[in-house]
Amino acid sequence: MADKDFRTIWLKPDDRSIVQIIDQRRLPHEYHVHDLKTWRDGVVAISDMAVRGAPLIGATAAWSLYLAVLVGEDVREAARTLLDSRPTAVNLRWAVDRVMQAVDSAGGKADLASITRAEAEAICAEDIDICLGIGSHGLPLLEQISRRKNGTTVNVLTHCNAGALATINWGTATAPIYLAHDAGIDVHVWVDETRPRNQGSQLTAWELARNKVPHTLIVDNAGGHLMQHGLVDIVITGTDRTTRSGDVANKIGTYLKALAAFDNGIGFYVALPSTTIDWNIGDGVAGIPIEERDPREVVEITGVTGGRPCTVATTAESTPVSNYAFDVTPARLVTGLITERGICDASETGLATLFPDKATA
Amino acid sequence: MADKDFRTIWLKPDDRSIVQIIDQRRLPHEYHVHDLKTWRDGVVAISDMAVRGAPLIGATAAWSLYLAVLVGEDVREAARTLLDSRPTAVNLRWAVDRVMQAVDSAGGKADLASITRAEAEAICAEDIDICLGIGSHGLPLLEQISRRKNGTTVNVLTHCNAGALATINWGTATAPIYLAHDAGIDVHVWVDETRPRNQGSQLTAWELARNKVPHTLIVDNAGGHLMQHGLVDIVITGTDRTTRSGDVANKIGTYLKALAAFDNGIGFYVALPSTTIDWNIGDGVAGIPIEERDPREVVEITGVTGGRPCTVATTAESTPVSNYAFDVTPARLVTGLITERGICDASETGLATLFPDKATA
Repeated sequence: MADKDFRTIWLKPDDRSIVQIIDQRRLPHEYHVHDLKTWRDGVVAISDMAVRGAPLIGATAAWSLYLAVLVGEDVREAARTLLDSRPTAVNLRWAVDRVMQAVDSAGGKADLASITRAEAEAICAEDIDICLGIGSHGLPLLEQISRRKNGTTVNVLTHCNAGALATINWGTATAPIYLAHDAGIDVHVWVDETRPRNQGSQLTAWELARNKVPHTLIVDNAGGHLMQHGLVDIVITGTDRTTRSGDVANKIGTYLKALAAFDNGIGFYVALPSTTIDWNIGDGVAGIPIEERDPREVVEITGVTGGRPCTVATTAESTPVSNYAFDVTPARLVTGLITERGICDASETGLATLFPDKATA
Repeated sequence: MADKDFRTIWLKPDDRSIVQIIDQRRLPHEYHVHDLKTWRDGVVAISDMAVRGAPLIGATAAWSLYLAVLVGEDVREAARTLLDSRPTAVNLRWAVDRVMQAVDSAGGKADLASITRAEAEAICAEDIDICLGIGSHGLPLLEQISRRKNGTTVNVLTHCNAGALATINWGTATAPIYLAHDAGIDVHVWVDETRPRNQGSQLTAWELARNKVPHTLIVDNAGGHLMQHGLVDIVITGTDRTTRSGDVANKIGTYLKALAAFDNGIGFYVALPSTTIDWNIGDGVAGIPIEERDPREVVEITGVTGGRPCTVATTAESTPVSNYAFDVTPARLVTGLITERGICDASETGLATLFPDKATA
């Protein structure tokens, strides 16, 4: 990200009993900093999606445990409740387990506030390193396309927000894009609106605009048409959970874009920190539970009218609604996984090459 | 449709100088009958999508020519302007050509008002017959699934609105569904929201509810996930234009659903009146021009808040937007075309079997 000081979560400088986040529910209309004063505020921020994106959810959980410890609340209860706040997010479990392990190792008498705070800070610092790692490994893909097209525009399509706003900074799917843009490559991003919740039109478009990366908003239905007509060079998305076989759970609709990319011979890449790999699951379609969320996410939408926020119902009140939050893209449709250690095939063999320690565990 | 007297367009009973339509822009929140007093009102109704759907657009154009003749306006200018109001709608050309042919055959001295009126009425009556034909040919597909599933629910997924509201009555994609429902088959419809313009959530859900057909609204992103998990038995959509080779231009996003159906071994059927077949085009992806519409269709959405209609902007004002209205589904992904003459393969051979007269022309 051009703005190297951008952050999505931080400890309030003048009051270390408060963690601050960007309330992403209010973007793009309003930039609002929201205070987390208790671990329960962290649970609500995660479940209501004031924060979203696997790495940021993990970081928020870690900071929430710090808040619990700080005032002497039951950190184990906090950990359990945090784990239930977004069932699909494997990164949430990873972060909670990591902080709790530090707590357990410390024994009862240690300064648990300092320990959990250090752990949360380390999780954030490491995430920034991971995103920059993903970016540096993904960048050559865009450089290659740029060379092949003699420096004309490289068109990237992305779904949902796997951007700086989903992490601490830089993002996962966006890290190669930001690095390419900084390197002077003519890069343009097709931003899927991403129904429901519109993370594309409301978050990805916002952060790309903030960093002056050329982009165009499209409806989720449009990607196939663009690919048929040569208007997409590469697809890069994020993921909430990747199985050891390379199946990818991500925002609902990712699977449809992967099918279209495959049908048109376009590279479909998934960017991920290795902490979101679930080594226990093989078949993602069968094995990954898919969260169903509040139907109001589909029916209601918040926008702006006359300069003021306004939530409208877009359907008849009686309309029955189903709202699956994720789908699973089978590994066979994924050209490659971009991780902080490099790019690999979306397969058990591919992942084992980059992560021999984990794959054999 | 259970309500056999339902109509989407009619001559005002007590004033034959006025044609009336349901203003579909106000559904599902308000049922409003809109008067077309001049042929220019007809052009606006078509281009602003107060009426939409190939057959209803054609019928509206025919009635607009009647309105032009009635007050002695230049019917040829009216015809030219009507043809430009929705470039993708081949049915529009068919209806305009048909009425103009009747005008030309009549010679200068005839009662052109009676002639154009009779032609418009015939177009409507024939469309109802065509929809019932499509329904009766499509019904066995649903009966077969119902038998295979021992009478348990038949799950149909549809995209956009190819329903009664897109025709004069019964619809194209919905005709088999309405007939199955009337025949006591346990049928349930997954209704794609259909961004932009939300014809699924605002029109298809409305007319299915009106006819008590069980249905569930989903976002356009969800269909692939449902298909992966055995929750869709068949996909039936409409089309605005079908090439002689069986390629299908329909609302943007149809191609993505066809890819998902193909990937999951689910039948993907397209229901169409043969008047929407364009015998002059072979390759649909290369040959069918795709209309780009106002970006506001993507950015703005009208709903209801506090009982009153309200239009909100859902993105930052500066966000660049692209809005392609249609995509083309290649014939290889289409299991069959349901026409008023029967079901055929989506291929030149298949169509030639049902329409030997047209195919050789």
